[in-house]
Amino acid sequence: MRIISQICEYWPLKRLAALTDEDVADMLISCTTAAETDVSTPPVPKQQRGSITLAGSGPGHPALLTIATLRAMRTADVILADKLVPSAVLDLAPRRALVTIARKFPGRSTDAQDELQAAALAAAQAGRRVLRLKQGDPFLFARGADEARWFGERGFRARVLPGLTSALAGPLAAGVPVTSRGVADHVVVASGTAAGGAAARMPGRVAGRTAVLLMALHRLRGVVAALTADEPKGGEGEREGAAWPADTPCAVVERASCRDQRVVRTSLRHVCAAVDELGSRPPGLLVVGAACEALHKHGGAWAVEEGCDEFEQLADWAIGDEALWTA
Amino acid sequence: MRIISQICEYWPLKRLAALTDEDVADMLISCTTAAETDVSTPPVPKQQRGSITLAGSGPGHPALLTIATLRAMRTADVILADKLVPSAVLDLAPRRALVTIARKFPGRSTDAQDELQAAALAAAQAGRRVLRLKQGDPFLFARGADEARWFGERGFRARVLPGLTSALAGPLAAGVPVTSRGVADHVVVASGTAAGGAAARMPGRVAGRTAVLLMALHRLRGVVAALTADEPKGGEGEREGAAWPADTPCAVVERASCRDQRVVRTSLRHVCAAVDELGSRPPGLLVVGAACEALHKHGGAWAVEEGCDEFEQLADWAIGDEALWTA
Repeated sequence: MRIISQICEYWPLKRLAALTDEDVADMLISCTTAAETDVSTPPVPKQQRGSITLAGSGPGHPALLTIATLRAMRTADVILADKLVPSAVLDLAPRRALVTIARKFPGRSTDAQDELQAAALAAAQAGRRVLRLKQGDPFLFARGADEARWFGERGFRARVLPGLTSALAGPLAAGVPVTSRGVADHVVVASGTAAGGAAARMPGRVAGRTAVLLMALHRLRGVVAALTADEPKGGEGEREGAAWPADTPCAVVERASCRDQRVVRTSLRHVCAAVDELGSRPPGLLVVGAACEALHKHGGAWAVEEGCDEFEQLADWAIGDEALWTA
Repeated sequence: MRIISQICEYWPLKRLAALTDEDVADMLISCTTAAETDVSTPPVPKQQRGSITLAGSGPGHPALLTIATLRAMRTADVILADKLVPSAVLDLAPRRALVTIARKFPGRSTDAQDELQAAALAAAQAGRRVLRLKQGDPFLFARGADEARWFGERGFRARVLPGLTSALAGPLAAGVPVTSRGVADHVVVASGTAAGGAAARMPGRVAGRTAVLLMALHRLRGVVAALTADEPKGGEGEREGAAWPADTPCAVVERASCRDQRVVRTSLRHVCAAVDELGSRPPGLLVVGAACEALHKHGGAWAVEEGCDEFEQLADWAIGDEALWTA
């Protein structure tokens, strides 16, 4: 049941609605049995040397894939995708490809990573073109470097394709320019959660700074306390540098770029109350700094904006015509 | 002659080789006359409402365009591109589109920006679908927010499409993961140059930090001095926080993702000598921190890697078939 509730939390309603009993049974099996991904289909052409590509799939919307990642998807025999890669992106995989989604649920992320890497290596050794598809960018909080090193040590030089990170595309989709003359002259991207789920050290306030905090919303109270406390304690989970004033503008951006995107514009003083009242819609991020008000002001303690249709027409074109994508 | 030498510095050899006398004459005219971009062609279908899209074109290689930006290019009537957008990207513009490249040469950037914005607005008011194409990402050191606000004040809500920033895709293409467990837990992206060409304040050293510095190579000596000086002076152009040790690994990444990419792996102690000896190949960036050695070690004071063919096959597909791109 824990698995089911986690899926319900992370997957979009449309995908959940399309689930069949068989899908659920499959998921339960995949979540409870040991990693033995079947890499035997489709048949490998003789003399095809296996390969491994690590590619970023961007913040969520398929229109924000790069041409390179889309091409890598369309030519892959085996696609091993991280859990957060949305179904609308996975729908672009060719029918002949074997697509596996990671079982990276809270508390099990290392196991899931090991399983996926082992499956990818086995497939490449069997001559398949393997694509490890990661949400966002492979080299920004996605453990892509570890993975590239691991494959390298086992004889496969992984090709690495960048992706748009939600750390930048998320603020953009919310109308927040992470730099802007006279407002913000640099941006810090950090994680609210360190290895093992511990609290991470927060960036201090510096004039002209925009801070983007990933993996921060599920422990928002601790993150905001660390950002704003008068006296950082110096231990793990505390802050490097000066406190951010409680009236610093901030925004919560969830499901960035997707149809069900939600933006909450508020301040560090009110952000916890806002999220308590509104609930969460993972994945999401917190962006902090004057840049949050560069293009959008709001009245009251917080303002909520639902939805994003900026990329819809752009995707239909790419996805509509199956003939376009024949490898 | 100044214009010509600047073009020679920024444009790829292939493009320079293809220049005709007529092209040169055109350029000289375009650089010396006032901005009067001709937005009268092609004819506008009746009832078409003009629109303005600001889109990022990524770090340089056309395979690193997003589907969204490519689609925006293919459906644009008028494309106004920043100077650094490479010709390989502009080659994807449809033949019917009017393509103008900014005259943003050193010391004239504000004029060029104003000219381009005025031309974009005039075209949109005349019913054209206008694309402002910016290298990298529109909201990271590209003045996209100013531009969006300016168009908004004049009745056009600009659609903003993100692009891969070279600040992240550059390090990735050089095999530098800006975050990596146990090595780097956050990344700062800053500019080496402030408004008006002044020296910008540099980020200090913090454990686990990767610093990416754009617009830093043309004044590398000042940047390195500000990063490493024992006593930051506190004035403009100095440093926020602790000094970086001289043996901190760093890398210079130029023409990121393109065929003529060059990576120089070195340390803050040797980077100025390396660039003095090797010369520069703009545009480029400096990335600083232990992450530079996460995947690549080098012997000696510096090591140079020429070229990047990671994205070549991926682009041929997209570009080869003109039929794919019919709007």
